[in-house]
Amino acid sequence: MYNFRTDLALERNDIYKKQNNITNQIEGIEVQNESKENIEIARVKIINEQGEKALGKPIGNYITLDIKNMKFVDDEKIKQISTVLSDELRRVIAEHITDTEDILVVGLGNIYVTPDALGPKVVPEIEVTRHILEYMPKAMPEDTRPVSAISPGVLGITGIETMEILKGIVDNIKPKMLIVIDALASRSIERISSSIQIADTGIVPGAGVENTRKEISKKTLGIPVIALGIPTVVDLASITNDCIDLFIEDLQQKAMSNEYLNKLKEQDNYTQIKEALIPKDYNMIVTPKEIDELIENMSQIVAKGINMAL
Amino acid sequence: MYNFRTDLALERNDIYKKQNNITNQIEGIEVQNESKENIEIARVKIINEQGEKALGKPIGNYITLDIKNMKFVDDEKIKQISTVLSDELRRVIAEHITDTEDILVVGLGNIYVTPDALGPKVVPEIEVTRHILEYMPKAMPEDTRPVSAISPGVLGITGIETMEILKGIVDNIKPKMLIVIDALASRSIERISSSIQIADTGIVPGAGVENTRKEISKKTLGIPVIALGIPTVVDLASITNDCIDLFIEDLQQKAMSNEYLNKLKEQDNYTQIKEALIPKDYNMIVTPKEIDELIENMSQIVAKGINMAL
Amino acid sequence: MYNFRTDLALERNDIYKKQNNITNQIEGIEVQNESKENIEIARVKIINEQGEKALGKPIGNYITLDIKNMKFVDDEKIKQISTVLSDELRRVIAEHITDTEDILVVGLGNIYVTPDALGPKVVPEIEVTRHILEYMPKAMPEDTRPVSAISPGVLGITGIETMEILKGIVDNIKPKMLIVIDALASRSIERISSSIQIADTGIVPGAGVENTRKEISKKTLGIPVIALGIPTVVDLASITNDCIDLFIEDLQQKAMSNEYLNKLKEQDNYTQIKEALIPKDYNMIVTPKEIDELIENMSQIVAKGINMAL
Amino acid sequence: MYNFRTDLALERNDIYKKQNNITNQIEGIEVQNESKENIEIARVKIINEQGEKALGKPIGNYITLDIKNMKFVDDEKIKQISTVLSDELRRVIAEHITDTEDILVVGLGNIYVTPDALGPKVVPEIEVTRHILEYMPKAMPEDTRPVSAISPGVLGITGIETMEILKGIVDNIKPKMLIVIDALASRSIERISSSIQIADTGIVPGAGVENTRKEISKKTLGIPVIALGIPTVVDLASITNDCIDLFIEDLQQKAMSNEYLNKLKEQDNYTQIKEALIPKDYNMIVTPKEIDELIENMSQIVAKGINMAL
Repeated sequence: MYNFRTDLALERNDIYKKQNNITNQIEGIEVQNESKENIEIARVKIINEQGEKALGKPIGNYITLDIKNMKFVDDEKIKQISTVLSDELRRVIAEHITDTEDILVVGLGNIYVTPDALGPKVVPEIEVTRHILEYMPKAMPEDTRPVSAISPGVLGITGIETMEILKGIVDNIKPKMLIVIDALASRSIERISSSIQIADTGIVPGAGVENTRKEISKKTLGIPVIALGIPTVVDLASITNDCIDLFIEDLQQKAMSNEYLNKLKEQDNYTQIKEALIPKDYNMIVTPKEIDELIENMSQIVAKGINMAL
Repeated sequence: MYNFRTDLALERNDIYKKQNNITNQIEGIEVQNESKENIEIARVKIINEQGEKALGKPIGNYITLDIKNMKFVDDEKIKQISTVLSDELRRVIAEHITDTEDILVVGLGNIYVTPDALGPKVVPEIEVTRHILEYMPKAMPEDTRPVSAISPGVLGITGIETMEILKGIVDNIKPKMLIVIDALASRSIERISSSIQIADTGIVPGAGVENTRKEISKKTLGIPVIALGIPTVVDLASITNDCIDLFIEDLQQKAMSNEYLNKLKEQDNYTQIKEALIPKDYNMIVTPKEIDELIENMSQIVAKGINMAL
Repeated sequence: MYNFRTDLALERNDIYKKQNNITNQIEGIEVQNESKENIEIARVKIINEQGEKALGKPIGNYITLDIKNMKFVDDEKIKQISTVLSDELRRVIAEHITDTEDILVVGLGNIYVTPDALGPKVVPEIEVTRHILEYMPKAMPEDTRPVSAISPGVLGITGIETMEILKGIVDNIKPKMLIVIDALASRSIERISSSIQIADTGIVPGAGVENTRKEISKKTLGIPVIALGIPTVVDLASITNDCIDLFIEDLQQKAMSNEYLNKLKEQDNYTQIKEALIPKDYNMIVTPKEIDELIENMSQIVAKGINMAL
Repeated sequence: MYNFRTDLALERNDIYKKQNNITNQIEGIEVQNESKENIEIARVKIINEQGEKALGKPIGNYITLDIKNMKFVDDEKIKQISTVLSDELRRVIAEHITDTEDILVVGLGNIYVTPDALGPKVVPEIEVTRHILEYMPKAMPEDTRPVSAISPGVLGITGIETMEILKGIVDNIKPKMLIVIDALASRSIERISSSIQIADTGIVPGAGVENTRKEISKKTLGIPVIALGIPTVVDLASITNDCIDLFIEDLQQKAMSNEYLNKLKEQDNYTQIKEALIPKDYNMIVTPKEIDELIENMSQIVAKGINMAL
């Protein structure tokens, strides 16, 4: 299997096609594109095992919203993006549960680590209704959906697998669906804090910035899990590897079609570069200097988008 | 029952004695005092139903540490206080479980509301071991106690009763004891961020700064619950009520033993003052201007104290 | 002179009238009221020395905006309030300088003390233009006003009087006007984070939450100083004093017109209560539990209001 | 001149020596090494114009402290490092002013951008004495040094060059020395938040994370300026450039001494890579995931180090 080094199905699709010289769609995968309010929407559907194997992701829907010029959004633009996001989200939710069924929103990540703080920052902005419906049912319209929200923390701080915490809560309060928010890793710098992926196949937390953990999905929890992920970092070794590739291509064009270089390019220099360049014990990430502000904007968009959809 | 308007058993004990003109100990209650490193330690033991009724608190141990000049502590002093705290804590824990049994530390409260942020600020400082013992057992001594830690959030943000969240987690990961950290309300301004109460009878979260919630205790969770509470606010109406009392005493001394004034003093002006003085929809608290810094110091003391004890 | 214990000219006006049984306007003071978008606007004008003496504030304009239900504002409402604020501000500025003259916005207060953090939170939201006009003049319309902004910190942290810091900067970069933002103390709990006072007479920093400092005004700096202040705290001793007054009135009504009580009421119990009730070394404030969030909302309103006005 | 892409004189010295195949010391530069408490101290002294040209830095002293395992420091270790830092600092200060002369500590950088927040985080920890000496001179020993501290903010937020702000303040309050704290860029990932450079030649703010600004030095302010800088980021393009160099070396060793490759290595691929790899409008930085915590530790060390030295 490829080491895609990205959590975005869309990027995996593009990398796989390029590396296998596929010009049409990959077998087992359907992609649909749309443009709305200056946002590019790509809907990647993995339809069978062949598609699963190609992208290394389970059968299901992966919708990516690419937002242009995220750095310069104002209140007006944030509202527009939230509206597009909420439309997509509403559609995905409706495929799995009804309008009045109970949803638990989960903000994964570590509030004390800026590029990992997206989930915990969204949670306090979610309009929770579950407790009002329980204690003052008459204060709300009869068909209000019970919504609750939690930030379970990360393994390094809690000492407990996030999946175990959620399993306990899900077993006890019995929501019908989880919406899980997490920071992702992308391959492209341009997608940092500028893309949103909605997947109906759950998530493996910490894929973006930490070691992978136990899967949070229908398989492990028994209810559908919508994952809403946003790339906040690119792995340094991925970037330097891409950089070597670009460099070799450049060499080949300028110099000659060198057999030795061809061979070099085929092999994955990732591990080798990582060892040569990046000190052990360090978890180096590439991120825009403005990440604090970008995360702030993104958490607003995600919170508004979810609130409108629920 | 009295409306004590304090969560500290020690203050309740003093108020009850004063109001009932008791000079010795209250029936059903034993109090023991000690002084260590400039810290006053009071051990209040409620031993039977009579004691329960007097103080409105369940049978059990309530240890209060009163720290002098908390405003001016330095690193050295913080270490001293933590050591005294850890000694007390270790003794209470040892009465309920063995040295190697699993403990879950719970930080109650809302990280976004300064006087309620103590619990969430302590959690990331706890040295958790449970995941290391699970994934890399050889990295730690054999008799290491599994420790985990969580900040479940508050009802207003999660939409879920804290007790329900904890019940789910306790049922799933099965710790043998809970240590719960929370902000309390005291009656005396001088105890704000200067006293620590350790109780082995659990807690009703939010008693300090919100409406009361479902009890977190052995009764509801099935395992012993040690509550570690620190006063961070005094209710405004309590203070103004105390102020009227002082004023009436003053009038009586200066003027005459006035029957009308006597009657006034007996009645509780709390509700009346609250209505006259404090606008509805507001939850006014009295707090030192330096509360942000005091909470910072206290969370260090509590985290160090717990780490040393476990 | 009265100890008003409020920085709001409007409250001083009301207290003075009440205590002197004045039903019309005070000599030397003109008050004008208006209501706009559910905001009460009061324009207090101190026109001569007699007015100065009555209110203990210098000759000039004091505009107060009282906002209802500040606790429940949404994005829409924040925009409305900002617009009203910017209209008032624009008018006051236009009385002193032209549309293209240089303004320096100053955020007073301590970012690490929640009720004092308003000023430092507004500064990064101000749209500064001075450096762009200097380095890339063609990037902006010709008649753009140069705007700069600074948070000088507080005496306890810097060791330097704020006035001295500002004097140095004003002498060196020569703005034509200062707009100074600060937290104030009010007398009424209902005005906390719900009123905005615009004064064209400068400010004495720290009046709200600390000892008073050197005046920041045309007199000390040589240029007009607009002060934009928002009450964030009420002094505890003020509240308890009000509480005694209410209590005495109540006694008088219910019991008898008692000469002794009359005398008591005339005297100011402030110092006495402060000594009896409030421990030394403590700076107790009364504030809503939700102050963190209220300050967040207010800093948005102020920043938007200033940006629109400039 | 070389584009060193590092603010550390020590790194420049090493790069210059390597690129010019110098095995001894560079003409005009003296380097002295020492090891203390597991900290490597390198004292680089630029003694003449030749040295200036080689390293692109003015004549003066540049002391670098390299701390090992900064990620795992505890309270004890922080104290040790602070002590070593304060010794070095004290010696440098003593070369320029006496023990009782007035010092202003300046924290450069943007508190809202994590890798740039070091300076603003140190300032509130500095023990300022200037105001106490002014208002309560008897409260302190007679020979106490007046110390003040300020965070002037960054050009993008204030609209004013930091140098202009400082010039105004220095002219007005007349300190005898400035100690300026800033985040730097290094070339090596291992130095991020692990090295401290003390230079007695002033600083050009924002060199680490922004466009360069007006110099803060004796030349511009008229008093000695000690700069205390800590690398918090590495520029992404620097790293990818280093990565290409390593790759070429590797090619040469494995394949052949290729003339074309030799030429490639001599040329600086920095600009080319930057254009190919990094989107415009983005300011990509490479930083450890744990940067928030590392900055916290470093600001403690620096504050303690300065407090001990003053």
